[in-house]
Amino acid sequence: MTSSTDISKAGEPLVLSIDAMGGDRGPAAVVAGLAAFAKRNKNVRFLVHGPKAELDTLVAKHRHLGSRVETRDAEGVVSMHDKPSHVMRNGQNTSMWSALDAVRNKEAAVTVSCGNTGALMLLAMVRLRKLPGVNRPAIAVLWPSRNPQGFNVMLDVGADIRADAQDLLKYALMGTSYARNGLSLERPRVGLLNVGTEEHKGHAELKQAHELIAAHAEENNFEFVGFAEGGDLSGDRCDVIVTDGFTGNIALKTGEGTASLIGQFMREAFAYSPLSRVAALLALTSLKRLQARIDPRRKNGGVFLGLNGTVVKSHGAADATGIAAAAELAYDLAKSGFGDRLAARIAQAAEASESTAEERSDPAKEQQKDGTNP
Amino acid sequence: MTSSTDISKAGEPLVLSIDAMGGDRGPAAVVAGLAAFAKRNKNVRFLVHGPKAELDTLVAKHRHLGSRVETRDAEGVVSMHDKPSHVMRNGQNTSMWSALDAVRNKEAAVTVSCGNTGALMLLAMVRLRKLPGVNRPAIAVLWPSRNPQGFNVMLDVGADIRADAQDLLKYALMGTSYARNGLSLERPRVGLLNVGTEEHKGHAELKQAHELIAAHAEENNFEFVGFAEGGDLSGDRCDVIVTDGFTGNIALKTGEGTASLIGQFMREAFAYSPLSRVAALLALTSLKRLQARIDPRRKNGGVFLGLNGTVVKSHGAADATGIAAAAELAYDLAKSGFGDRLAARIAQAAEASESTAEERSDPAKEQQKDGTNP
Repeated sequence: MTSSTDISKAGEPLVLSIDAMGGDRGPAAVVAGLAAFAKRNKNVRFLVHGPKAELDTLVAKHRHLGSRVETRDAEGVVSMHDKPSHVMRNGQNTSMWSALDAVRNKEAAVTVSCGNTGALMLLAMVRLRKLPGVNRPAIAVLWPSRNPQGFNVMLDVGADIRADAQDLLKYALMGTSYARNGLSLERPRVGLLNVGTEEHKGHAELKQAHELIAAHAEENNFEFVGFAEGGDLSGDRCDVIVTDGFTGNIALKTGEGTASLIGQFMREAFAYSPLSRVAALLALTSLKRLQARIDPRRKNGGVFLGLNGTVVKSHGAADATGIAAAAELAYDLAKSGFGDRLAARIAQAAEASESTAEERSDPAKEQQKDGTNP
Repeated sequence: MTSSTDISKAGEPLVLSIDAMGGDRGPAAVVAGLAAFAKRNKNVRFLVHGPKAELDTLVAKHRHLGSRVETRDAEGVVSMHDKPSHVMRNGQNTSMWSALDAVRNKEAAVTVSCGNTGALMLLAMVRLRKLPGVNRPAIAVLWPSRNPQGFNVMLDVGADIRADAQDLLKYALMGTSYARNGLSLERPRVGLLNVGTEEHKGHAELKQAHELIAAHAEENNFEFVGFAEGGDLSGDRCDVIVTDGFTGNIALKTGEGTASLIGQFMREAFAYSPLSRVAALLALTSLKRLQARIDPRRKNGGVFLGLNGTVVKSHGAADATGIAAAAELAYDLAKSGFGDRLAARIAQAAEASESTAEERSDPAKEQQKDGTNP
């Protein structure tokens, strides 16, 4: 099934597989976003999945896209309300399925979709399969922070509402791999989200995860700062924050909601009186500079980690600017060979665990070292 | 032990019991905050607990405070690092203990402290005792929102990292009672925090709590909107958001951290160039208007709910403005007779449950109705 767009050939453009359907603004916004990104980057091609006739019309509107897009016909659309299990059983004809299969078949390096998150994750697990050694894949986001790199990595933000100590260790490995490739940090600092930084606080599972992650920090070249709090998500104590998908999802949406409320308050403050409207005009450059730093579209995209292949989940409400940002993120990850590096990291950690286990004669000791309860 | 400042006498000033020690800025900030609040409100008196000589010197600096403050000598101070269990066993001589005992002895209506949260909660449980029917007390905060009242109530933000379905029901009852008395809402709308609004999402315990809260909404005069998401904390879908103390604490600190980061970005945007600094001067009124709306000191204070007596926990880092806001919140709650109303509401709900249970002959049915597992 390997086509002429095989991603392994050096010098050739990278290929991204794009699910054009399922976002709130429809395929026109998706194609416009790809057109914007394609103008900035000449070394990228797209496989775009959806109803072919409709897509071809949209693509034809952007002259520079024509030669760089191949449309793939898929009549079915996964809606935001479809149950993931239903899509898994009946979704063979959907644009989402087709977009994932292009990565499965090595025709493209990364899939981008703004569709239903739950369905996308379940389909990705079925079509791409989990990496050996990963029990629960995770969704990672970049979170604006006080760190020099401008962002921290948080995961899981909602792939699975549960995570045990072993899962949280894998999240630490995957998150640091993402921080190395996505944020160019050599030795990322990892924090484990909890209600306080003292070691006696929090659930028993978190204390287990604390021991387990600490024990694997050195050999995996990251620094473990221990427990982190909600405020550290936007702070500079850590670069990667690890938590279960329940807590992570609520933190993500709480942060987005807070930023959006402050944005509204700001608009109201500057629209309050004729004088304040004049002031807003004069402050326009500063306000735009601020807007650019907190614009959630600028780093649009949760990345699915722990699968044989990378998937970027764009926000469902993304406009062309948001889609372009998601495509850029997908491109950057593909270019750095992130998927292969992550897989190697997980494989190495699994091997290290196994060989450590083999070296030891007393399994009880091994369990103690790993911080797991007998 | 009932003194001349007995709170039950009508027309007499309300008395607040103030722990002057344990905050990051020391007793000077606390006394300055009380002085500021006392200027705004003539009908309040204070019992202030701490090292008497030091407090008397501080109080003497504010002439209008003199006749309205009674200092109570307590040499011991609970530090932010003291373990709650240690304070419970050895803290009899501390200002925190003394401040709680004034409410226990009915000398004051509400306790205010900016000390160690964990120690304050444990001491409050021991000295004031839990209300009958309450298993886990909770800490509630007011969260800036899009609702007309400007704030939503969220609880628990960290009294206990665990909460079962029955606890979450009690949180709904206590939270709506707080919203009625603190935000003047007749029929508050309650949401249960989860990772999605669909009924099939989330942990099994949350589905149980969903059924239980829905079953008690009508008789307790609140509207249950079902599951809420992180974004609803600052939104207008609900007035009261209920969650366990682990999730609530992380959401609270995430929201605070996000607001603080945006504030920093805003200052940087307006300090960027000489021109933007001029613009900032012209926009000063608008910026101050914005600042006032997002200033966390304006509504400073978590309220401990579910005890025989109300405790307001001020932020540890609170300055005089923050302390004045916490004192004002304590005063408002005392004035509305909030403590008694909340106790009555919990007692009534407990009675209603019991009488419903007695009316039924089949206990299995009752369990089904309450959504609890057999």
